Amino acid sequence: MASGDREESKCCFKEWMTTQEEDLSELFQALTVEPENIDQLKQLAEKSITHFQDYIKRRNKLAHKDISAYFAPNWCSPWENSLLWVAGCRPSLFFRLVYALSGSEVESNLTEFLLGTKEGYLGEVMSSTQLLMINALQSKTISEEERLTMKLAALQEDIADQPIAMIAKGLSKVGEMNGEVEKVLDNHGRQMVKVLEEADGLRMNTLKELVKILSPLQAVDFLVASKKLHLCVHNWGRQRDQKLGRKEIDEEC
Amino acid sequence: MASGDREESKCCFKEWMTTQEEDLSELFQALTVEPENIDQLKQLAEKSITHFQDYIKRRNKLAHKDISAYFAPNWCSPWENSLLWVAGCRPSLFFRLVYALSGSEVESNLTEFLLGTKEGYLGEVMSSTQLLMINALQSKTISEEERLTMKLAALQEDIADQPIAMIAKGLSKVGEMNGEVEKVLDNHGRQMVKVLEEADGLRMNTLKELVKILSPLQAVDFLVASKKLHLCVHNWGRQRDQKLGRKEIDEEC
Repeated sequence: MASGDREESKCCFKEWMTTQEEDLSELFQALTVEPENIDQLKQLAEKSITHFQDYIKRRNKLAHKDISAYFAPNWCSPWENSLLWVAGCRPSLFFRLVYALSGSEVESNLTEFLLGTKEGYLGEVMSSTQLLMINALQSKTISEEERLTMKLAALQEDIADQPIAMIAKGLSKVGEMNGEVEKVLDNHGRQMVKVLEEADGLRMNTLKELVKILSPLQAVDFLVASKKLHLCVHNWGRQRDQKLGRKEIDEEC
Repeated sequence: MASGDREESKCCFKEWMTTQEEDLSELFQALTVEPENIDQLKQLAEKSITHFQDYIKRRNKLAHKDISAYFAPNWCSPWENSLLWVAGCRPSLFFRLVYALSGSEVESNLTEFLLGTKEGYLGEVMSSTQLLMINALQSKTISEEERLTMKLAALQEDIADQPIAMIAKGLSKVGEMNGEVEKVLDNHGRQMVKVLEEADGLRMNTLKELVKILSPLQAVDFLVASKKLHLCVHNWGRQRDQKLGRKEIDEEC
């Protein structure tokens, strides 16, 4: 049963990556073929957010059974894992992406203007009101992110506190497990699950708020870029791993 | 060759764990059999620190070849990895351990006094001067730890910046690698190595300063507890993993 839980966690992630690939394809299609169909853009952005919410709900349920698997998942490459913050991306990353996109598109719009071509939507219509709202949301998000970073740090330090240190010190054989150790570690795990739930909540809310501020066209442009970035990071990490000769394990889902 | 690098990193860690087991045994022996032999205690504490320094030097050299392996090493359990801060323990954890030990030993000294037995040294002789010095070192360490946490966060967010986001956006196939991607990721890796080196430097210096403040007897008591804690965390994680049915890979070194 326990082994099955970790398998299920891995499948949950793999299915989420497949869903993102499908969503990306639909979003990209809408953006390039029918960018004037606002209703379709809105509906696809909402669908994308619903899929993220479904994934979060499912993995939070699984995390109760084996939380530590999520903090350094063996279904991701070490490189991808080195980028993780509380078992996922940093919500502040969304803003860096919006700024990177809007900056580059201001430039590319200039080129388009000069060349008479057209691509990209974020730079084009970002109003000062939007920039102010995004800036306010960013500040709020960063302070929440810092609060959770501190909460996780405290949990990591707790391991040196009583009773853990005392149990370790008192054991006759290093690494010996007993009922007391199990109880302390189970409790530690429950605290980690809470931090994960809060972090996922922050990721979800930040995404929702951001999409509300952006126009449907900008939102879809942002979602396309963020999904593409996530899929690229995942695949680049795997490719670098293969180059480094790391064995792939449990490839099947 | 590349595969050999990761194997070597794993062996480097395994050898470090074995060294710690041996050091622990010697330190514990000295503490229980000849606690009045101050020269021996001093020498063993120094030896322990030299071993840590050797390990850090060796792994920093290896990290240049494959840095991300250190941020979520596959030679540790996910549980142990979930406790990592910049590929190792938080230096602030040393203080939590000193306080936990000295607190518990104040209590245990009272028991000893009542029962006429004797064990533990940290609570016994901790002077107010020592406590003040430890407190000052702790503040300095925590602010350095926070600085490095922010540096790592910035590096994790950089992934959403240009040119990475732009490369991802521009790729015709998700996850496609090219020379430009490789160059950006190699540079990102070099920045990660710098953060690891700074974090290891902080761990090393904090340990050295702390041992200087403590008496030889207290220092050995602290080193015994910290090594025991590290070995326990490593073994507890593996045991929990086995319970969860996770396959052990690359067990041989």
